[in-house]
Amino acid sequence: MVTETKTDFDQVVDQITQNYISDEVFVTKENRRLPGRSNIIVLIKRLRALMFPGYFEEKNFEYTDAKYFVGNTVNSIRRELRQQVETALLYTNEHESLSCIAKKADDIASFFIGRLADIQNMLLKDVQAGFDGDPAAKSRQEIISSYPGVFAIFVYRMAHELYIKNVPFIPRVMTEYAHSRTGIDINPGAEIGEYFFIDHGTGVVIGETTKIGNNVKLYQGVTLGALSTRKGQLLADVKRHPTIEDDVTIYSGATILGGETVVGAHSIIGGNTFITESVPAHTKVTLKAPEMTFQADPPKGPVNNGDWMI
Amino acid sequence: MVTETKTDFDQVVDQITQNYISDEVFVTKENRRLPGRSNIIVLIKRLRALMFPGYFEEKNFEYTDAKYFVGNTVNSIRRELRQQVETALLYTNEHESLSCIAKKADDIASFFIGRLADIQNMLLKDVQAGFDGDPAAKSRQEIISSYPGVFAIFVYRMAHELYIKNVPFIPRVMTEYAHSRTGIDINPGAEIGEYFFIDHGTGVVIGETTKIGNNVKLYQGVTLGALSTRKGQLLADVKRHPTIEDDVTIYSGATILGGETVVGAHSIIGGNTFITESVPAHTKVTLKAPEMTFQADPPKGPVNNGDWMI
Amino acid sequence: MVTETKTDFDQVVDQITQNYISDEVFVTKENRRLPGRSNIIVLIKRLRALMFPGYFEEKNFEYTDAKYFVGNTVNSIRRELRQQVETALLYTNEHESLSCIAKKADDIASFFIGRLADIQNMLLKDVQAGFDGDPAAKSRQEIISSYPGVFAIFVYRMAHELYIKNVPFIPRVMTEYAHSRTGIDINPGAEIGEYFFIDHGTGVVIGETTKIGNNVKLYQGVTLGALSTRKGQLLADVKRHPTIEDDVTIYSGATILGGETVVGAHSIIGGNTFITESVPAHTKVTLKAPEMTFQADPPKGPVNNGDWMI
Repeated sequence: MVTETKTDFDQVVDQITQNYISDEVFVTKENRRLPGRSNIIVLIKRLRALMFPGYFEEKNFEYTDAKYFVGNTVNSIRRELRQQVETALLYTNEHESLSCIAKKADDIASFFIGRLADIQNMLLKDVQAGFDGDPAAKSRQEIISSYPGVFAIFVYRMAHELYIKNVPFIPRVMTEYAHSRTGIDINPGAEIGEYFFIDHGTGVVIGETTKIGNNVKLYQGVTLGALSTRKGQLLADVKRHPTIEDDVTIYSGATILGGETVVGAHSIIGGNTFITESVPAHTKVTLKAPEMTFQADPPKGPVNNGDWMI
Repeated sequence: MVTETKTDFDQVVDQITQNYISDEVFVTKENRRLPGRSNIIVLIKRLRALMFPGYFEEKNFEYTDAKYFVGNTVNSIRRELRQQVETALLYTNEHESLSCIAKKADDIASFFIGRLADIQNMLLKDVQAGFDGDPAAKSRQEIISSYPGVFAIFVYRMAHELYIKNVPFIPRVMTEYAHSRTGIDINPGAEIGEYFFIDHGTGVVIGETTKIGNNVKLYQGVTLGALSTRKGQLLADVKRHPTIEDDVTIYSGATILGGETVVGAHSIIGGNTFITESVPAHTKVTLKAPEMTFQADPPKGPVNNGDWMI
Repeated sequence: MVTETKTDFDQVVDQITQNYISDEVFVTKENRRLPGRSNIIVLIKRLRALMFPGYFEEKNFEYTDAKYFVGNTVNSIRRELRQQVETALLYTNEHESLSCIAKKADDIASFFIGRLADIQNMLLKDVQAGFDGDPAAKSRQEIISSYPGVFAIFVYRMAHELYIKNVPFIPRVMTEYAHSRTGIDINPGAEIGEYFFIDHGTGVVIGETTKIGNNVKLYQGVTLGALSTRKGQLLADVKRHPTIEDDVTIYSGATILGGETVVGAHSIIGGNTFITESVPAHTKVTLKAPEMTFQADPPKGPVNNGDWMI
């Protein structure tokens, strides 16, 4: 490396170090840092092993040892979660005392652990909904071991418990991990009932203030979104996303927008519809068949020179 | 931790242990467990190294050692696959004898290994189709090393061989792994011809009973799906997904539904079309340009207070 | 294993070895191999740690040590990048001398390192754009730690610097890694201005010759694509993708196609629109509400026998 390059190198190092100093997103103080993303992912994997033992690990889950497995796993989840929550609160609540934050982290970890058995029962209902609703499913076991919808819902149900306790960072890191694995983006703030199923799932977006009843089924590419977010942070506490009542099916690519939009119970929303107003109960909404042009014109092979529009 | 919390903790452990006992999806018996997802992923990576040596590993693939590399890799694939298939069959075929299951697992592993050279040739044709069809592709090597479509098709072609032998769990775990990495969801039951190419791919869904000919090209967001699945498991053995004949191109966001829907050879299906009836051969189907409103109205900046509809 | 199987096994090994010999995509020569995908991913993670220290690793980033951390990290990035670039150039530029290639790799690594501080400043503006534009965002820190759009833009901005220096393989492997993690497919050739934000993001496709100005915001499922690619490699150097001017918002599912299509500054493109011609500045384009059928007809439960169309 020649001298000139050496100087350039030093200059780059100085500039980046200067960037760190200039912006508060980089400023770390004693006892203040962000919860580690990799720790949160380990936590998700441990929770998954607890909810669905034997489905994702190589080693055999031995039935006779169940109580010890559960005790050990719950204990390690509690300890790890408590620490990550404390880290997150230390970062955001800088004016609170350490002991107050420790107490809050303790309480949140206890609350979370106390919810696990109920959440497991909800997840079993979600799995049942998947089996009942998909002719391609061979067994409930196959759904647990491979369906992305079940994984996304599992992570959402965990993250939601932390969201309602106002835990910073962790709920969203959790659901974005699931989003990354499945293409299903469920904001941890959404409220979702029992027997929920998402088939295929890629491209599904469920916004922060969405409410979903029981027995609801979604397909890939469904957006439950906001009408407009151009007011940005001014809208932070407003209900911006729709309400879906019980027993509704929403087919692929449907877009339902707006905080005052309600899809009534037992309704069916057809593929690719675009809905910004409420739909009464027991209604089937389908797109009027879009007008299409059928033009007979034989291309000369798979790659030809015709100017075919996409 | 105070005594009260201790009691709560014990209660949580008891409830979850009770959940394990109550539902048969958790019941494991001697010699019965699910094939490990992580083992199946290792198997996929080994198959990829065999199909495309030198593209994904750090170490140099030395040409002179090819035969030894192939022998070793094929052998380890055979051994691992045999074991996972046996595990899967033990789980589902509980009334069959161990020796009968061992024989089946052996036969399936042999059948699979015997298909690998042919599958490799098909994959090379898929790579060629990608290069011919995408002006952004710099070389076939770039397609192998980075295109998600090729990865999804590679995994599908492997999984399909196990699907047709009725192997439980493993084919779907394989294709859902690819779905997770690529956003491309190809059911292992689909039948897909040669020179198949999927560009970009996120959101593509290809259902279990789909049939696709040779020289077919799909873009992102294409659904080859079922008209309705509300009859659930009653539809499990019915052809529910469309047939796409040779030399068809389907542009982004097109939805083609129904087991009796046939898209004839050499046809072109335009973007965002919604097709539930057969299309004759040599036909170009395009969406009639949707009516759009153009409204001149200068917003005052990137975030303004206008109530703009999404 | 019986003798017959042994023979079959040998035959499989022979055939695959023969495949390796027959196709030049498998031929490796001395000093020629592809850059390792896993090395490139390690490089991305190191770059991320440099751009956003303390956000993804477990260990605390200590402020007082910043300069040493930066120096070490920049140095290791430079060394690793230089080696991967040299590997890539050796593979493609077989008629160039080793010393010439070494010089090129050196220059490219220096150029890249020299750009890092500026790129970091651009990324901070992208993060700010995300915070300003999303009411669900709790803080800029949350955006850095969990938003997929920021990750995809970060990887794109790095890959683009290598693309403009004509580095083979590496830029596309980088952006396809981000595509795999986020569902956002940005070709490294695209040119993208400051304060860029992609919300949710799954299914976004931004083609190779796209130009995007400052303050542009995209939602999930937006395609900035080519009108037709049926001419394949003949189109390799043509501008095939649209130009988006400053201060444009494009809502979910919009498709904008064609190299001569320009969306003028301050325009708003509504959800699910399909645009193949230029849009003047200060224009709002919305889909005319698609005609929908509302049919009151109570299904008898979540899974009934009615033949409901998807």
